[in-house]
Amino acid sequence: MLIQQTAIVGSGIIGRSWAIVFARAGVPVRLYDHLPDNRAKALEHIGEALAQSAPLVGDATAQKAVLDRIAVADRLADAVADADFIHECIDEKLDSKRTIFRELDQCAKPSAILATTTSSFPVSTFASELPGRGRCIVVHPATPPHLLPVTEICPAPFTDQAVTDATFAFMEQCGQTPVLIRFEQSSFVLNRLQAALVVEMLRCLNSGIISPGDIDKIISQGFGLRWAFLGPFEGVDLNAAGGIREYLERFGFIFDDMARQNGLEGAVVTPEAIAMLEKYARDQLPLEALGERTAWRDRSIASLRELKKESARHR
Amino acid sequence: MLIQQTAIVGSGIIGRSWAIVFARAGVPVRLYDHLPDNRAKALEHIGEALAQSAPLVGDATAQKAVLDRIAVADRLADAVADADFIHECIDEKLDSKRTIFRELDQCAKPSAILATTTSSFPVSTFASELPGRGRCIVVHPATPPHLLPVTEICPAPFTDQAVTDATFAFMEQCGQTPVLIRFEQSSFVLNRLQAALVVEMLRCLNSGIISPGDIDKIISQGFGLRWAFLGPFEGVDLNAAGGIREYLERFGFIFDDMARQNGLEGAVVTPEAIAMLEKYARDQLPLEALGERTAWRDRSIASLRELKKESARHR
Repeated sequence: MLIQQTAIVGSGIIGRSWAIVFARAGVPVRLYDHLPDNRAKALEHIGEALAQSAPLVGDATAQKAVLDRIAVADRLADAVADADFIHECIDEKLDSKRTIFRELDQCAKPSAILATTTSSFPVSTFASELPGRGRCIVVHPATPPHLLPVTEICPAPFTDQAVTDATFAFMEQCGQTPVLIRFEQSSFVLNRLQAALVVEMLRCLNSGIISPGDIDKIISQGFGLRWAFLGPFEGVDLNAAGGIREYLERFGFIFDDMARQNGLEGAVVTPEAIAMLEKYARDQLPLEALGERTAWRDRSIASLRELKKESARHR
Repeated sequence: MLIQQTAIVGSGIIGRSWAIVFARAGVPVRLYDHLPDNRAKALEHIGEALAQSAPLVGDATAQKAVLDRIAVADRLADAVADADFIHECIDEKLDSKRTIFRELDQCAKPSAILATTTSSFPVSTFASELPGRGRCIVVHPATPPHLLPVTEICPAPFTDQAVTDATFAFMEQCGQTPVLIRFEQSSFVLNRLQAALVVEMLRCLNSGIISPGDIDKIISQGFGLRWAFLGPFEGVDLNAAGGIREYLERFGFIFDDMARQNGLEGAVVTPEAIAMLEKYARDQLPLEALGERTAWRDRSIASLRELKKESARHR
């Protein structure tokens, strides 16, 4: 499935951001919104967002070339007519999803992929009765996708494998970082991870132990600098000479204690979890290379702090 | 309390990193470790760490100037004799803390501040019987402190206010970002926030919904890029035209649901929490400036992605 033409339905913040992602990768976009006012303003907003993300796009000429690949359509049928990939980005209501997918399944060409940017409705909850249900798939980004590459791909049990494969390939072609959500759950993974952190931040706030600004600083002047380069598992792998296995065998109780204090039952640091994480970590990096990776992390963080100083000057 | 001379007890990763923080700010350091082997290798390790963090230190000449401010002492008494600020960085055992603080309280000069880098033992658990308990305080960093500036300061109920104030001032002078932990708890805040995220990552891993590498990417190719510049509360403030109040009033149920699913009782997004967070956010930034701050965030993230591309080339 070669994706040569895309359509985006809904020109809010996420729809416009996806338009940038596709057009930036050289793929034409037709953008539709049911509100004439949103349609009228979409290209102007996109132009501004392109200017703010110049390091990822290039100079004014390059920005214009991207913008020129995005057209606004006044009718849904015109937007999707010859699209190979259609991304639904309308409001987050189950009924709206059901209605628009019925319509898309009728007016899109038979080979088109029908993606939804939903953060909370697995495809099974609104498209399982459609004739074209096999081409429906969740493609849920971090916000906004033209800046944060990670993108959750969640097929329904009835989604064709070829659709999942083509969606992954297309996201990679666009420079995104697709991750596979293996089965449907109400909130996928991305929002769960953020919520878990924010819930703990709120608990600290509510207990009075620390001010709101100081909580933010623990992330923005602390872990955030590390997590910009390494996921937390990769980070933990650097914290013991024996890597993540040694770390979790020695300090895993910290996480189990935390889980227990928060009312969860059973251990989270199980032998199976340690085995999976060790395989992941050692497939990426042999133990002998941990020192070098740590030095790389340190250089990267030091450069980021330089960048932040510069960036703060233009705040 | 002017801090003109420091001592560090324990030359492991954290002790050496603190030595860099102090010496980089122009303040001389005497470093002691009870193991001769650690003492012998300390300066070499510090020299390497200085080279890896060159953007924060400067060229080889500047690195040498920092290194020259650090001396290794063969006896504890020599290291601490005329120090104004003594940072204990030995092994994380309650008995060891009790013993070393008794010793430090005897051999340090009376005006010296006695800080501990502990992540888990509030000062009250090991220093409450000391004659000099009023000068004891927790100064716990993110790891490593010479790269991650945020630093938890937790006084005991008996710590002199002047000691807390001087510790804050000294950390700021060193370019760190001190945050106040208002009362003693077993694990302060920094590690709680990290543990909350890692526990949720482990739960996702254990459920089989996603691979370990994909979980890491959700942070390192997603939220981590945002959190490098903005704390999660500051980030949420940009997600609704009415700022964090509007966001939490509309979407706060997401966090309450998450808390409930994890076995916590009661809401976390309370009216009091919203009021505190709104005051914090609006003191920082008027509502009218949210658009400009969002544009700044976008420019910053775009620059960071450029930096990451460059950094990946040297991995």
